[in-house]
Amino acid sequence: MSTADDPAEVRVGDLSEGAILARILARLAPSAAPVGPGDDAAVLAAPDGRVVATVDTLVHGPDFRLAWSSPFDLGWKSAAVNLADVAAMGARPTALLVALAMPNDTPLPFVERLADGLRAACDELAPGAAVEGGDLTVSDTLTIAVTALGTLDGGAPVLRSGARAGDVVALAGEAGAAARGLDVLFRRFRDLAGEPTPIAFDELDAGERACVEAQLRPRPPIALGPVAAATGATAMMDVSDGIALDATRMAEASDVSIWIDSAALGARRGWAVDGGEDHALLAAFRSDTALPPGFRAIGHVRDRGEAPLLVDGEPYEGRAGWDPYRDWDSATG
Amino acid sequence: MSTADDPAEVRVGDLSEGAILARILARLAPSAAPVGPGDDAAVLAAPDGRVVATVDTLVHGPDFRLAWSSPFDLGWKSAAVNLADVAAMGARPTALLVALAMPNDTPLPFVERLADGLRAACDELAPGAAVEGGDLTVSDTLTIAVTALGTLDGGAPVLRSGARAGDVVALAGEAGAAARGLDVLFRRFRDLAGEPTPIAFDELDAGERACVEAQLRPRPPIALGPVAAATGATAMMDVSDGIALDATRMAEASDVSIWIDSAALGARRGWAVDGGEDHALLAAFRSDTALPPGFRAIGHVRDRGEAPLLVDGEPYEGRAGWDPYRDWDSATG
Repeated sequence: MSTADDPAEVRVGDLSEGAILARILARLAPSAAPVGPGDDAAVLAAPDGRVVATVDTLVHGPDFRLAWSSPFDLGWKSAAVNLADVAAMGARPTALLVALAMPNDTPLPFVERLADGLRAACDELAPGAAVEGGDLTVSDTLTIAVTALGTLDGGAPVLRSGARAGDVVALAGEAGAAARGLDVLFRRFRDLAGEPTPIAFDELDAGERACVEAQLRPRPPIALGPVAAATGATAMMDVSDGIALDATRMAEASDVSIWIDSAALGARRGWAVDGGEDHALLAAFRSDTALPPGFRAIGHVRDRGEAPLLVDGEPYEGRAGWDPYRDWDSATG
Repeated sequence: MSTADDPAEVRVGDLSEGAILARILARLAPSAAPVGPGDDAAVLAAPDGRVVATVDTLVHGPDFRLAWSSPFDLGWKSAAVNLADVAAMGARPTALLVALAMPNDTPLPFVERLADGLRAACDELAPGAAVEGGDLTVSDTLTIAVTALGTLDGGAPVLRSGARAGDVVALAGEAGAAARGLDVLFRRFRDLAGEPTPIAFDELDAGERACVEAQLRPRPPIALGPVAAATGATAMMDVSDGIALDATRMAEASDVSIWIDSAALGARRGWAVDGGEDHALLAAFRSDTALPPGFRAIGHVRDRGEAPLLVDGEPYEGRAGWDPYRDWDSATG
């Protein structure tokens, strides 16, 4: 137990759950819900009689490294990736529930900055959404599981399975920046044993820095999810694992083939195809639909052929995205 | 990587996320939702325009030990504790989202049995509720974060803060069994180093066995939550941390004092007061309300005095429940 008087030296293990919770709630936006934090459960508005719900977890090790991610970054990213899943249904995020499991020696200011990041991501990416509940527990492994809820505001959900031959495939948001940023981190900021080391931002050029920031604090175009739905998107998902893997998933769900024009992916096309974590919105629209502002065409949908995904006309056979169960080994990082 | 042909020897690290997910989904109840598992998010019915939402996490170490809990137990308990939080608002559970973080060497049958436990708890405790979404990730620490959603079916939520002087305090469900069961586990099934060892059920008498089972697979009276709400409960919560701590929380939220008659708690009154995890429903009712079947009076509400909680007339000064941040040390268990 710490006996320090300096608030920066207080550890969560020195405090009761209630005391930690009070410090977190003080950083969050006021509740906009019928019943916000503090009871056994929250009660949230679901104005059209449905609620969109998703959960995603960030785990220290496979999903982030504390040498690279600040607590603010972690709060931001854990919110952003879940807001993107709500937006990818064509819905507007309304609330987050945050399950935070952390070691007893976690500094209290770390938790407060994490709460700041959660709030900032909601305020900037999904105004009106707020943390409305959560759970604190002890773990040897810092883990942040965020549930995001949202409303379709009377519209139909946009599924992965609705793409039809002739549709245009379009993308909104970054393509490859987060993956390029991860590559910069792995190549430049590891010591001889391969362990992450602090990021020297002043050693990075502007492009590298932008990509590292896209990796640590992704900015998915959340507001464009409902816009795409209202414009008639036939299928949509967020690109969490790279365009190759996620477009393949859309093609399989829709029983079509998807042709991607890699030149349309811009300067980081290689990273965009194989690397994930931008949480851009990948959508299909009827070819006679004017794409909503923010979306750019990157391909089209064909009748199902032998391969679900064609990149510049060739069946895609590269490395398809990031699968935590296949790609991560806690021993080697 | 395992190369075994025996399915029992397959580890989750040998499989893709999609393959593990398919094995889990095969064990779960069919989705009853407008959009169930498989897309970026689920779409769930919220028929009265509101949704009740809560999250709670079980972490290996502070919350369970694999020497004592079977994977079925873990699935069951992670569902039950969250269903209880929904019921404690007076709501009917409709859906769970399950974020499962597990080591790569977790056997696939372990995950399947955990899914069986989730399903069984829903089927038996909250018919109509099902797992409608989730997330799989890798972690060195097995962690199960469950979000539970529910509907108030047009009724008002029952908060902690509504108890008024003169109300009867009533309890539905077990009182002290889970805490007594944990004590049996700690006293009887640890080796010389204090490490958990397998439970020898045949060494237990019937009462001990029932308590151990209550600890590992609690059976909160989920269906009684909406019944209590319909009967006019003025306040309600689930007893997760012991009647002393949770009744104190209700008293503080309601700005009243609560008098508990310990004799009404039955044979395990000491465990009931100080120990948690039964997830019984603690509720207040107007004194002229006939208690719904399943509830028994255990005390009453008074104007706020100096102490929020009186047990048999004495201000309660004992050990008040379990706080993970105060009570658990990963080094000593």
